Amino acid sequence: MNIPKSSFPRIIIIGGGFAGIALAKKLSKQEVQVVLLDKHNYHTFQPLLYQVSTGGLEPDSIAYPIRKVLGDFPNFFFRLADVSEINTEKNKVISNIGELKYDYLVVASGSKTNYFGNTSIEANSMEMKTVPQSLNLRSLILENFEEALLTSDLNERIALMNFVIVGAGPTGVELAGALAEIKKGILPKDYPDLDTRLAQINLIQSGDKILKEMSPQASQKAEDFLEKLGVHVWKNVRVTGYDGKTVTTNSELTFDAATVVWAAGVKGAAIKGLDSDQFVSRGNRIMVNEFNQVKGLNNVFAVGDVAQMETESTPHGHPMMAQPAIQQGRLLGDNLLRMLENKPMKPFVYNDKGSMATVGRNKAVVDLPNFKFQGVFAWFVWMFVHLFFLIGFRNRMVVFINWVYNYIRFDREARLIIRPYKKNIKP
Amino acid sequence: MNIPKSSFPRIIIIGGGFAGIALAKKLSKQEVQVVLLDKHNYHTFQPLLYQVSTGGLEPDSIAYPIRKVLGDFPNFFFRLADVSEINTEKNKVISNIGELKYDYLVVASGSKTNYFGNTSIEANSMEMKTVPQSLNLRSLILENFEEALLTSDLNERIALMNFVIVGAGPTGVELAGALAEIKKGILPKDYPDLDTRLAQINLIQSGDKILKEMSPQASQKAEDFLEKLGVHVWKNVRVTGYDGKTVTTNSELTFDAATVVWAAGVKGAAIKGLDSDQFVSRGNRIMVNEFNQVKGLNNVFAVGDVAQMETESTPHGHPMMAQPAIQQGRLLGDNLLRMLENKPMKPFVYNDKGSMATVGRNKAVVDLPNFKFQGVFAWFVWMFVHLFFLIGFRNRMVVFINWVYNYIRFDREARLIIRPYKKNIKP
Repeated sequence: MNIPKSSFPRIIIIGGGFAGIALAKKLSKQEVQVVLLDKHNYHTFQPLLYQVSTGGLEPDSIAYPIRKVLGDFPNFFFRLADVSEINTEKNKVISNIGELKYDYLVVASGSKTNYFGNTSIEANSMEMKTVPQSLNLRSLILENFEEALLTSDLNERIALMNFVIVGAGPTGVELAGALAEIKKGILPKDYPDLDTRLAQINLIQSGDKILKEMSPQASQKAEDFLEKLGVHVWKNVRVTGYDGKTVTTNSELTFDAATVVWAAGVKGAAIKGLDSDQFVSRGNRIMVNEFNQVKGLNNVFAVGDVAQMETESTPHGHPMMAQPAIQQGRLLGDNLLRMLENKPMKPFVYNDKGSMATVGRNKAVVDLPNFKFQGVFAWFVWMFVHLFFLIGFRNRMVVFINWVYNYIRFDREARLIIRPYKKNIKP
Repeated sequence: MNIPKSSFPRIIIIGGGFAGIALAKKLSKQEVQVVLLDKHNYHTFQPLLYQVSTGGLEPDSIAYPIRKVLGDFPNFFFRLADVSEINTEKNKVISNIGELKYDYLVVASGSKTNYFGNTSIEANSMEMKTVPQSLNLRSLILENFEEALLTSDLNERIALMNFVIVGAGPTGVELAGALAEIKKGILPKDYPDLDTRLAQINLIQSGDKILKEMSPQASQKAEDFLEKLGVHVWKNVRVTGYDGKTVTTNSELTFDAATVVWAAGVKGAAIKGLDSDQFVSRGNRIMVNEFNQVKGLNNVFAVGDVAQMETESTPHGHPMMAQPAIQQGRLLGDNLLRMLENKPMKPFVYNDKGSMATVGRNKAVVDLPNFKFQGVFAWFVWMFVHLFFLIGFRNRMVVFINWVYNYIRFDREARLIIRPYKKNIKP
């Protein structure tokens, strides 16, 4: 990898997600050389991917070119690279575009879908962690409606219009709500010759509570909202398999469905060389101390979803969400500069600003540390916060216009099958 | 294809382009059953595809769901179908989703790229007729910049930054201008470690005039604009081949380039059953009379790019552009209704409203029937007209916001490699 030599120490950041970008911004205009590596040339605003999948937003408005974030700083380098291995003895990373030595390394590789070893689900269900995956899901949903029109077999039509979402965290809840709104607002207009009643949205949760990280009020209210929208919420049901036709569970319950979205688990995207038991905890997250420093390595750090910082208040690490990632990225930026000046680093303290989820139009739940509320106002807060954290003025404008339009017109216009998707392309 | 039987006559329209949509709209609320078939579930606003390729616009804002255009009318049916054959004796169309009988058939299948039998160019160059093709070109342009950073071979780097556009019609001119603006505005910021001077944009025209359908003033001024932007315009040069590395021409001139866009020819997309010499002219367009009726067939029509209506003033048919397509689609709608009422049909008369092309920021050329002008005002007219013809209020808003943003910031933010593209995937 031909990065020019520099008299400044070289910091390699793997991953341009929330943590990586926050860190990179902190290191701008400093006496360090920063090399950011990512598989994509854009930062993805993952909390809104479900709106891409359901035709409410275009992918370009929730993604942002990484080069543009970093472009103006002469000591910044971006490379489109897939890192396959880290050699901590020789201080180098190995990628599909070659090797590169580092003085300091920050792993910010995020998380990936966790199928808990269930190969039938992995092979046949959809996930929604990246822009291409979300576009595939959009294509599949629309293709299934088109196919439902063609079949004369009623059972097949029912399966084509049956959506099973496994996992009732924010992603599952938000996707289920959006699909319910499509059933109500779009299906009758777009497919007048389909019996809309056949469309079913099933949301399955293994525990006895949806949005389990949130307050009991938020959880209960979200469930009420979902039921009002016609979503079937199944609690205490664990999905055990999906062969592409039938979802099986730990009870007698089964679902014949052509679309199954797996939102029931994530794991850290630890990279070879740092993925042995020595380094990772349960959940494949890299164990770090309170400075996000990897156990036993002075010059290697991990931040965001991939980092597991176990403290008294967070025995399993921080939640795998945007806020801890951004805060860790920012603090590590300061700490690296302190380290270079031989000053002591500051320990990370998570400032929990609360959490929120939206179920649909005028329906959201918000837990702030001292104030919990649900409904219309929560929904506006949800939108405002998401617009605020979106990177780029243009993105904010375009998302805002789309939301206003969708709100006024009960519509989602980006329902385009840009690339047909066939599940069986997966191995 | 299970379309319900109706007491109304069934009109099948093949293609949801400008002509097909204009026709379908005219037939709404009338006593006919309309079945529209298209390979995509969206209408594509082709004149702005080059802005998708160059990161100025997102694909979703220049495409529009066909079901939404037709949704409200009970006698309208859309099917996502690829028509492979027309049987005019049995009055049926044959597609990948089955057969369907028609009372009246309208072929509005548009045009496709014409390589004039040159297989090396077809295998290795890019085209820009559909949204996926435009996204592939966007990915390739950006991937080539990323690759240019990695190579230590200067010749390879030069080839990776060399863009050859064959054909200086509106598409070629607009794409060349947009690439020149990327070279000037984006490259130095996004790729500070690339020598921007190496980026070359070559526009090749076989004749002695660019924008040959336009006035001499427009042609000359567009050429001046391109030269001001640093585009190399090669006239009287015919490209003879491209093996993926080197473009050869009918002279000694060759170009080593990793990106070659073929915009030098289109041909009608005539469909099997209507593609024999009996029906098509040179250019694979279906011969029609002044009512857009296919020669020798009373109940089969062709409109838009795929139709060749030879009149005294148009010995080779009308130009393959949006305006004739829209006008023919509208008139045919009226004529079909007249025919059903046993009234005489009205012959088509093309109302040439003029033509225009944009080269870049503040640089466009407009030919109106009685007034020709170039420059800033022409550029605003070009934008206004394109916004006006774009389908959908949301699309207009989003495109407008993007243009204002791009204008103020000298930027194009949609420079995302959503799906990597490798040319060699092509057969």
